[in-house]
Amino acid sequence: MNKTNWNDYIPGISIDCVIFGYHNKELKILILKYKNSNVFALPGGFIKKDEDLADAAGRILNERTGLSDIYLNQFQTFGSLSRANTEPMKEVLKENERPFTDDHFLLQRFISISYYALVDFRKAKPVADFLSDSCCWYDIHDLPELMLDHQHIYETALRHLRTDIDSTQVGLNLLDDTFTMAELQNLYETILGEKLNRTGFHRKMMLSGRLKRLGKKKTGKAHRAPYVYTFIE
Amino acid sequence: MNKTNWNDYIPGISIDCVIFGYHNKELKILILKYKNSNVFALPGGFIKKDEDLADAAGRILNERTGLSDIYLNQFQTFGSLSRANTEPMKEVLKENERPFTDDHFLLQRFISISYYALVDFRKAKPVADFLSDSCCWYDIHDLPELMLDHQHIYETALRHLRTDIDSTQVGLNLLDDTFTMAELQNLYETILGEKLNRTGFHRKMMLSGRLKRLGKKKTGKAHRAPYVYTFIE
Repeated sequence: MNKTNWNDYIPGISIDCVIFGYHNKELKILILKYKNSNVFALPGGFIKKDEDLADAAGRILNERTGLSDIYLNQFQTFGSLSRANTEPMKEVLKENERPFTDDHFLLQRFISISYYALVDFRKAKPVADFLSDSCCWYDIHDLPELMLDHQHIYETALRHLRTDIDSTQVGLNLLDDTFTMAELQNLYETILGEKLNRTGFHRKMMLSGRLKRLGKKKTGKAHRAPYVYTFIE
Repeated sequence: MNKTNWNDYIPGISIDCVIFGYHNKELKILILKYKNSNVFALPGGFIKKDEDLADAAGRILNERTGLSDIYLNQFQTFGSLSRANTEPMKEVLKENERPFTDDHFLLQRFISISYYALVDFRKAKPVADFLSDSCCWYDIHDLPELMLDHQHIYETALRHLRTDIDSTQVGLNLLDDTFTMAELQNLYETILGEKLNRTGFHRKMMLSGRLKRLGKKKTGKAHRAPYVYTFIE
């Protein structure tokens, strides 16, 4: 993998991904740690010269998670001049790709086209890229310090996810096929970062027309078992 | 202006702008017509190597409209391979910049970072760029055939404007400082492309908490004069 031919890629443009997974009332994102360094970053990659932007995003997600057909949402493109701060990347290159010169592909300002992705936490098999020695889930309340403006990119992604929360895609991609109202409320509360009123939440969801009630959950105690629901796609 | 130094600009990335203006129940956008050709396009430009993305967008809008501090909303980045269709641009270059070679800055696939802008139709002074011989307002129901995927970019911008219509910025930038409820409803109907119920619209707007009622419009006939409103910023 060390033999990346940088000439195959469009210079100056990167794709950065905020990959959300949800598990046990915790919202997590995938973070890479570069080899032999203390540099943490959002997973990302570059666009091949003969590749559609959307295909590049799907390929990068697939490379990091092993999943295909991932729900991806392009939310913003970042292009501040401060993105040309190449010190962290020099640190990484010193360890991984020497000799290198100051005109190395990775040492320029990148305009970052950013996506958030929603993946099934249990199905994803995080894979580090060739510059990284780990790709791990981090709870959003316990993120390491991220390089460049990646913290800002993550926060913007979370804001978009919160705005999009009533989109069926969010629940569809972060919950099981069937779920109880309590499980759905837990997902909402975790994403929004606040407690919701149980009765109001239940009413709002039923009025939304997005849910279908299937029957009672099989718990052995029929009279206390909650109903399970599924999304109407 | 013919002496553009293409080396000052980041290759492969463009900014395209859907510039909306509103007048007399008509929603219009600015369209460029390239010199000596039948090629119509959204106004756009490129990012200088030493320039922030946001500054580049503001500069381009200023160059096309003469206005500064324009309300700008980055809505999507387009990067289909079909954007490498360089025939229309060759036609333009043949007329304007010969001799040119096939590796000319303008003859590559551009990843387009797209913004929509809301401008005061009466204050804007549309200015063609050095490749164009006109920059004019077109009613959205009467657009010429646009080059590349510019029609798709415009349609995506309109969809975003419709989604954002309840943002105070929309009315604030497209209406006068004070307006009647009928004028506000006209703006909504023009953007949404549908008639709205008058009573329902009035109630919704008053409940939104975004409007302040100022007094009656000075028409000479006090008892029939409508109230005027302003936005609470």
